[in-house]
Amino acid sequence: MEHRTKGDTRVDHQKLTRFVSQAFQKLGVPENDAEIAAKVLVAADLRGVDTHGVIRFNPNAWYVKWLQEGSMNPTPNIRVVSENGSTALIDGDTGIGMVIGHRAMELAIQKAKSSGVAMVGARNSRHFGMSAYYAMRALPHDMIGIAMTNASRQVVPTFGLEAKFGTNPICFAVPADKELPFVLDMATTTAAAGKLEVAVRHGDAIPLGWALDENAEPTTDPKVAQKARRLLPLGGTREGGSHKGYGLAIVVEILCGVLTGTITALNSNQEPRGHFFGAIRIDAFRPVADFKADMDRLIRELKSTAPMEGQQRVFVAGEIEFETTQERAARGIPLHSSVLDGLRAVSEQLGLPYDLE
Amino acid sequence: MEHRTKGDTRVDHQKLTRFVSQAFQKLGVPENDAEIAAKVLVAADLRGVDTHGVIRFNPNAWYVKWLQEGSMNPTPNIRVVSENGSTALIDGDTGIGMVIGHRAMELAIQKAKSSGVAMVGARNSRHFGMSAYYAMRALPHDMIGIAMTNASRQVVPTFGLEAKFGTNPICFAVPADKELPFVLDMATTTAAAGKLEVAVRHGDAIPLGWALDENAEPTTDPKVAQKARRLLPLGGTREGGSHKGYGLAIVVEILCGVLTGTITALNSNQEPRGHFFGAIRIDAFRPVADFKADMDRLIRELKSTAPMEGQQRVFVAGEIEFETTQERAARGIPLHSSVLDGLRAVSEQLGLPYDLE
Repeated sequence: MEHRTKGDTRVDHQKLTRFVSQAFQKLGVPENDAEIAAKVLVAADLRGVDTHGVIRFNPNAWYVKWLQEGSMNPTPNIRVVSENGSTALIDGDTGIGMVIGHRAMELAIQKAKSSGVAMVGARNSRHFGMSAYYAMRALPHDMIGIAMTNASRQVVPTFGLEAKFGTNPICFAVPADKELPFVLDMATTTAAAGKLEVAVRHGDAIPLGWALDENAEPTTDPKVAQKARRLLPLGGTREGGSHKGYGLAIVVEILCGVLTGTITALNSNQEPRGHFFGAIRIDAFRPVADFKADMDRLIRELKSTAPMEGQQRVFVAGEIEFETTQERAARGIPLHSSVLDGLRAVSEQLGLPYDLE
Repeated sequence: MEHRTKGDTRVDHQKLTRFVSQAFQKLGVPENDAEIAAKVLVAADLRGVDTHGVIRFNPNAWYVKWLQEGSMNPTPNIRVVSENGSTALIDGDTGIGMVIGHRAMELAIQKAKSSGVAMVGARNSRHFGMSAYYAMRALPHDMIGIAMTNASRQVVPTFGLEAKFGTNPICFAVPADKELPFVLDMATTTAAAGKLEVAVRHGDAIPLGWALDENAEPTTDPKVAQKARRLLPLGGTREGGSHKGYGLAIVVEILCGVLTGTITALNSNQEPRGHFFGAIRIDAFRPVADFKADMDRLIRELKSTAPMEGQQRVFVAGEIEFETTQERAARGIPLHSSVLDGLRAVSEQLGLPYDLE
């Protein structure tokens, strides 16, 4: 996550969504799918998860590049491969990860309505953007949402020299009553890969425990770390508990990769990706009102914790992102000039009017 | 986890299970339940999770004390409160956590057989021993098992001064083919509370990042840490990612506490406890043989990682515990004299023959 302040241009999120959707359509994506994909990308920018937003939408980056080179399918045949009362496996036909993820999560929610809980895996997908988008789809249904994905190899197992798996994020979204929903969206590494980009851009050193260099020695230089692609699991070192972060990353690979048949840890070209989604209907366990009242009590108890010296407050997962969303929805999303350059290049390449600034 | 070597007496695990079961029966627990409870405790000792085994079975500790003082119900009316195709909520009537947990996990497995995936919560339970026991029950059914529990308040949220929640462990067990099952059983803190006991016993310092002292300053003294009861979430510090460990602990509290109605984070006497169990039928997604073959490939890929300098090998979650189980099942469980003293005291108090040494 990153809050840009200086030198950025504020862009209206609805305008931005429309622009990205139209660009997707110019790239051959059907209107409905293009709108979903654009919504997921801009949702990341709104939440302050800038590394998963339109920074990836330019002729040299992810989605535009992949669609143009043909490695991402604009009109995939997304189909249910196997199905059960509370489960499904979806084949994404290497379409846009956001479209595949959206369909899979909707199916999980649908199934949970009748069976109480449901889990849906997706195979042959591609990068799906921000996990929180999918998990949060469960919230208006009074369900707990779960979303995770495997990712390209750049994380070293505890005691290991070489990267063997991805930053494998996991997200849980839980509704509350008067308090904000609890939304935990975390890479299973000490720091998400995007944090290195931010450190490079700001010229900051990174803490020890985030990454190793090309000789697998600890490094504080984010450029060295980016080049080496040897991030450390949450915990950093064995005595810091990195076997737990490593273990969680493998749980994500098992659910997203082994259970679906799309294992990035064993795939030399690191594509396609597998995802895993879950929905838990609260009233299958307790009356929703009781649950939400207790969520409020829990959240207030956590927020009321006396802060340590030098800190103003204790946060609950998702709180900062909700505050960012509110601010950005009102004032516009601050985009760096390099991101705007990328969007302008897309507009020129696709012959799409550029009306963002 | 702890491997004792010197000065310990090896005790046959079957004899030990029988002894503990008979003691539970003397304390008013029906035979079948007593056998389950004994099996769970000794399973922890077999796996090397000594802090959750018979070290807790003496007149001054957990189960024996609670049953004798009447705060734990030897003959609970364990009942299903609410039920759905793939979910259930069980009320444990403050019985033995191991018995309640066992029943809840069996129900999750039963339900997953028909619906593909199932989740079962348990409220009004007590300490249930080692999480891995429950999750591993899923393995012979070719299912992925999940088990978690909330715990007494001794963990500080990121930026906070005071402990607000428990070490809230989470466990995933996944079958493989020729390789050992993957079993991740982790507290969501940097180090489990039991690690402090081990450090005290050995006179070792603890690493920074494990715990705070009574002024909420970092400490390396395990005795100070035990007294202060201010453990740190996995990650240790904010820059080390402790907001992720904190978030995971709250996910566990939400599933075990808020969804069941038994929230230890809001309960001043820290009892009862809530648990949460899940079972995912592999063949609801993929043929079991394909899944297991891919698990073997993944596990071998991880184990084949070149180790860093000074390390012999890269482990996969559960591997060390399986090796320990094998060794202890063959040679007996090494018990410290103080643990044997406790068991002897139980035998005298209950008039039960002592045949362990």
